[in-house]
Amino acid sequence: MLTDDLALLDQHCHGVRDADLDRVGFELLMTEGDLPRAPFESMLGVTLRRLCAPVLDLAPHAAAEDYLTRRRELGWREVTRRLLRASGTTTWLVDTGFATAELTGLAEFGELAAGSVREIVRLEAVAEDVAATGVAAGGFADAVERELRARAADAAGLKSVVAYRTGLEVPERRPSPATVACAASRWLSAGGGRLADPDLLGWLVHLGAEIGAELALPLQFHTGFGDPDLHLLGADPARLTGLLKSTRDTGVTVVLLHCWPYHRNAAYLAQVFPHVLVDLGLTIPHVGARAAAVLAETLEIAPWRAVCYSSDGYGLPELHHLGAVVWREQCGRLVDQWIAEGVLTSGDAERLVAGIAASNAARAYRVAA
Amino acid sequence: MLTDDLALLDQHCHGVRDADLDRVGFELLMTEGDLPRAPFESMLGVTLRRLCAPVLDLAPHAAAEDYLTRRRELGWREVTRRLLRASGTTTWLVDTGFATAELTGLAEFGELAAGSVREIVRLEAVAEDVAATGVAAGGFADAVERELRARAADAAGLKSVVAYRTGLEVPERRPSPATVACAASRWLSAGGGRLADPDLLGWLVHLGAEIGAELALPLQFHTGFGDPDLHLLGADPARLTGLLKSTRDTGVTVVLLHCWPYHRNAAYLAQVFPHVLVDLGLTIPHVGARAAAVLAETLEIAPWRAVCYSSDGYGLPELHHLGAVVWREQCGRLVDQWIAEGVLTSGDAERLVAGIAASNAARAYRVAA
Amino acid sequence: MLTDDLALLDQHCHGVRDADLDRVGFELLMTEGDLPRAPFESMLGVTLRRLCAPVLDLAPHAAAEDYLTRRRELGWREVTRRLLRASGTTTWLVDTGFATAELTGLAEFGELAAGSVREIVRLEAVAEDVAATGVAAGGFADAVERELRARAADAAGLKSVVAYRTGLEVPERRPSPATVACAASRWLSAGGGRLADPDLLGWLVHLGAEIGAELALPLQFHTGFGDPDLHLLGADPARLTGLLKSTRDTGVTVVLLHCWPYHRNAAYLAQVFPHVLVDLGLTIPHVGARAAAVLAETLEIAPWRAVCYSSDGYGLPELHHLGAVVWREQCGRLVDQWIAEGVLTSGDAERLVAGIAASNAARAYRVAA
Repeated sequence: MLTDDLALLDQHCHGVRDADLDRVGFELLMTEGDLPRAPFESMLGVTLRRLCAPVLDLAPHAAAEDYLTRRRELGWREVTRRLLRASGTTTWLVDTGFATAELTGLAEFGELAAGSVREIVRLEAVAEDVAATGVAAGGFADAVERELRARAADAAGLKSVVAYRTGLEVPERRPSPATVACAASRWLSAGGGRLADPDLLGWLVHLGAEIGAELALPLQFHTGFGDPDLHLLGADPARLTGLLKSTRDTGVTVVLLHCWPYHRNAAYLAQVFPHVLVDLGLTIPHVGARAAAVLAETLEIAPWRAVCYSSDGYGLPELHHLGAVVWREQCGRLVDQWIAEGVLTSGDAERLVAGIAASNAARAYRVAA
Repeated sequence: MLTDDLALLDQHCHGVRDADLDRVGFELLMTEGDLPRAPFESMLGVTLRRLCAPVLDLAPHAAAEDYLTRRRELGWREVTRRLLRASGTTTWLVDTGFATAELTGLAEFGELAAGSVREIVRLEAVAEDVAATGVAAGGFADAVERELRARAADAAGLKSVVAYRTGLEVPERRPSPATVACAASRWLSAGGGRLADPDLLGWLVHLGAEIGAELALPLQFHTGFGDPDLHLLGADPARLTGLLKSTRDTGVTVVLLHCWPYHRNAAYLAQVFPHVLVDLGLTIPHVGARAAAVLAETLEIAPWRAVCYSSDGYGLPELHHLGAVVWREQCGRLVDQWIAEGVLTSGDAERLVAGIAASNAARAYRVAA
Repeated sequence: MLTDDLALLDQHCHGVRDADLDRVGFELLMTEGDLPRAPFESMLGVTLRRLCAPVLDLAPHAAAEDYLTRRRELGWREVTRRLLRASGTTTWLVDTGFATAELTGLAEFGELAAGSVREIVRLEAVAEDVAATGVAAGGFADAVERELRARAADAAGLKSVVAYRTGLEVPERRPSPATVACAASRWLSAGGGRLADPDLLGWLVHLGAEIGAELALPLQFHTGFGDPDLHLLGADPARLTGLLKSTRDTGVTVVLLHCWPYHRNAAYLAQVFPHVLVDLGLTIPHVGARAAAVLAETLEIAPWRAVCYSSDGYGLPELHHLGAVVWREQCGRLVDQWIAEGVLTSGDAERLVAGIAASNAARAYRVAA
C-alpha cells in the first residue's frame, strides 16, 4: 500500500513505562479508565494481539496471557526497542508533562526508538512547577513566563490540557494582569497543586499562544476523549472557536489532538481557520479496524494539509506501535479504495498520505520529515 | 452467522398494545413523532415489511396495506405470539411505567412471548403515583422511598426518564432533605401530575442509585432520541458524567439506553466508568440495515463487556421482533466481516456476540441468560 | 442508476460570480474559510477535478492549473452555462440575500441555467435594508413586516441566517412589541448594520414563521457548518427545538439546510416534527465520495418524505454542478447497494430518490417538480 514505507513523524506521544508489568499494570495502561473491565476484550485488545504479537515472535492473535508471558520473557527494554523501531517512525515529539517519573526520559526513549526525539512542553505542568517553588503571587506570572520561555528554547512545541481542567471554553482574550495576579494569589495561598482556575488557565493558554507565535512553536490541545478526569462535553474542540478567532492572525499554529468523537467538528475548524492542524492521535490505536472509517469522516471536510499523524502512545510501546501500523493499514486501505473507485488519482493519494505521515507536521514544527 | 442461534435477553422493552389496530393507530406506534408522515417510507418501514411480513405468512417486502390486512386477519394476539416467539428472546425485562393501561401486563406478555419476564420499575412513575395518593409534602420523600423499595423487591432493575423532564444534567450529589421537602411542597400544592421539578428528579435519581446499589438492581436511563417531549441536547448521556463520578464506587450499575445519535459518547462513558453498560435499544429497529454501522461506531471504544442488547419494543410486537432479528443480522454481518478481514478470531467474535446477546446483562441483572 | 435521469429541484442555492476568476479568487470560493490552504487538496478539490473537468472538455482529474486555464479560455458565462445545464436541474430556488452585487441576478441565472428560477428571501437582509432607509425605531417592526410581505409575494420561500448571528437558540415565543421596539431603538441608534440583536432576531424568525404559515412559504434555516463567522455549537439544529414546538401546528414548513456534522440531529427533528424538512446542501459537494455515507446516516431516522436535495451552490457554478452530480452518483450508489442486499425493493428505492430529488420540495414550496 502507499503507506507501507512512509517514514512517520509522531507529532504527539509520551514516554513508556520503564519497568516490567504484571497483567493488572499492563491492562491499566490499555484503557482510559482506571478500573478496566477485561480490556483485552475491545477493539484495542484484539488489535494489539493481532499486530503486536508478531513483533514479539508470536502468531497474530496470540492469547493475551501468552502475549504477556512473552513480554516478560523479553523484558520491557527489548519489547520497547522492537515495537518502537518496527513502527517506522523516525521522529517523535514527546510530551514530558505527565507522570514523568514512571516513564522513560527523552534520551532513553530516543535510544530505545533509534529515532530523533524532540520535546513538547506542557503549559500546566510548568505553571504547577513554578507554583511549587514558593513564588509570591505578585511574581507568579513573570516567573511562569520566564520558565516557559526557558523550556521552550529547546522544545518543538507546547501543549495545553485545559480540556481536563475547565474544558476548552477558554476566553477569547487574555485575562488582564490584575485578574491573573488575583487568581494567582487565591491559588497559591490555597497551596497550589493541580491548576484548575479558569483565569489562570485562560491566561496560560494565551501566553502559550503568544510564545508559540514568537518562536514558531505549535500549540497542541488535548481535545475529545481521554481519562475520566475529563468532561467529554467540555472537550469538544469547537469550544476553542473564540481562541481560534483571536489567534488566527498571530502566526501561531494550533493543533487539535485526538478529537474523537468530535473529529468532524475538528475537521471543520481546520477548514475555516488556516492555522489549525488536526490529528486523531489516541483514537487510532483504540479503534483499530475502525480507523479507516474515522479517518474518512475527518477527511470529509478537512483540508489535506491540515491533517497530521500521531500515536499518543503512553506507557505501553504497544500504543506507539499500533498508532503507526494501524494508521498505515487503515489509511492505506482507505486511499486504495478511493483510487480503485476513481475518486482520486494515485498522485493525489500520494500527496494525501505523505502530508499526514510527516510533511504537514514537519512544516509546522520545523523539524525534518 | 454467529448470532443466528443465540438466545437473547431483551434488557429493556415495554408491553404491546392489546387491541387490533387500524392503519392510523399502527403508524402512530411506528414513529417517535405524534403526527407521522408516511412512516412506512423510512428505514423502519422497509425493514418491517422485509422481516415481519414472512412471520405473518406474507412474502418479504409485502405492501404495507397487505401487511396490515393480514395482521387484522390474524388478530393482535396471534401476531404478537408469532413475532415475540420468533425473535429467539428467552427473557424480557419490561418497563411498566408508561401508558400501561393500553398495554399487556407482565403476565400476559410472558404468556404471549412464551418467555421469562421481569419488571423494570420506573422511578418517576412511582413518585407520581405516590403524589396522587394525597401524601403530605413532609412525608413525600419517605413515602416514595417506601414504595420504591416495595416495588423493587420483585424487580430486575430501575429506570429513570429524567432525560424527558429536565434532561440528564442531574446534580452530582443528592439534594438535601430540606430542598426535597420544599420542592415536594411546591409540586404537591400545585396538584402533582407530571414530575418535572429538578430538585425532586435529582433526589429521585440518587435514591434510585442508592437502592440499586443496595439491592443489586441496575439503574437504566433513557438517553438519546425519543419522542418530541424530549430536548435532544439534554439527552446526551455525557451529561450524566457528574452522576457517574459520584456513583462509581457505590456498587450500582448504570445502563445507558438507546444513545443514538450520542452512541459514541455513551461508548466513551462505558470505557472510563466501570459501572456503565450501554445498549442501542430503540435505535436498532429504527435504523434497520444501518444497525451494523451504528454498532460499529459504538464498538470503536466500548469495552465488549459493557454492551447489551435490547429492543425497546413498545406497543407493536413488530418492534420487539425487529430489535432481535435486525440485531442478529447486522451484528452477525459485522463480526463476519471482521473475521473475514482477520481483525479478530472466531473465538473473539463468539465472546463479543454472546456478551451483547445475553451474558453481559445477565451478570448485571442477575437473571439467567 | 435510479438517480441518473431524475430532474432535480435545487431547493437552496445562490447566484454565480459574474466575472472570470484568477486562481486566488477561484480558491477562495472553494472553501468556507477566508484564507484557504491548498483547497484543491481536499475531497472537494479532487471531486471538482474529477467531475467538472469533463464538462469543460478535459479529462477527469485534470490538473488544477489546467482546469483553471481552460475555465478562463471558455469564459465564465460559457462555463456557467455548461455546468448548470449539465446538472439536470430544472428548478432553482435562489437565496438573494448575500453578496448579491457580485453575483448573477435571478433573471441572468435562469437564462444561463436554462431553468426555472424562484426567489428565497433572506429575513435578516430585509431587516437590514429597512434599517438602512432611516426608519424610526417606533416604526421599524411595521416597516420590516410590510417589506417582508411585499418581498414574499413573489418568493418561493424565506430563509434565516440566525445561526450566524446569535446561534439557533431562538426563543420559543415571539418577543413582545415593547421588547422589539426597545431593541430596535438600541440597534438603529447605534447605526444599524449587521443585525445581531437576539430580541430582534427572535422576533424576525417568528415573523418569518407567521408569514410562511400564511402564504405557504417554507422557512429555511442555515444549520451546521459554514464560514468562520459561525460558532459551530450554536448551529446545531437541535437548538431549534423550542421554535419547532411552537410552530408545529401553525402550518409553516421549516427547512433545515446543510446540517453536517449534525445531520443525525436534523434527521431526528424531521421524524418527530411533521413540519420539518432536511437537506444536506453544502455538505454534498464538499464531502464528495463520502456523500453516500453522510446520506446513509441521515436516512437512519429521517422519514423519506422529509429529505430534500439542494446544492447550496454559491459563486462557482462548479458547486451547483457538483451538488447535483455527486448527489446522483452517491445516492444512486447507496440505493443500488440496498437493493442488491435486499434491504428494499426497486419500487421503494424509486420512491425514495424521487422524493429527495424533487417531489418533497415541490410539495412544500408549491412549485412544479
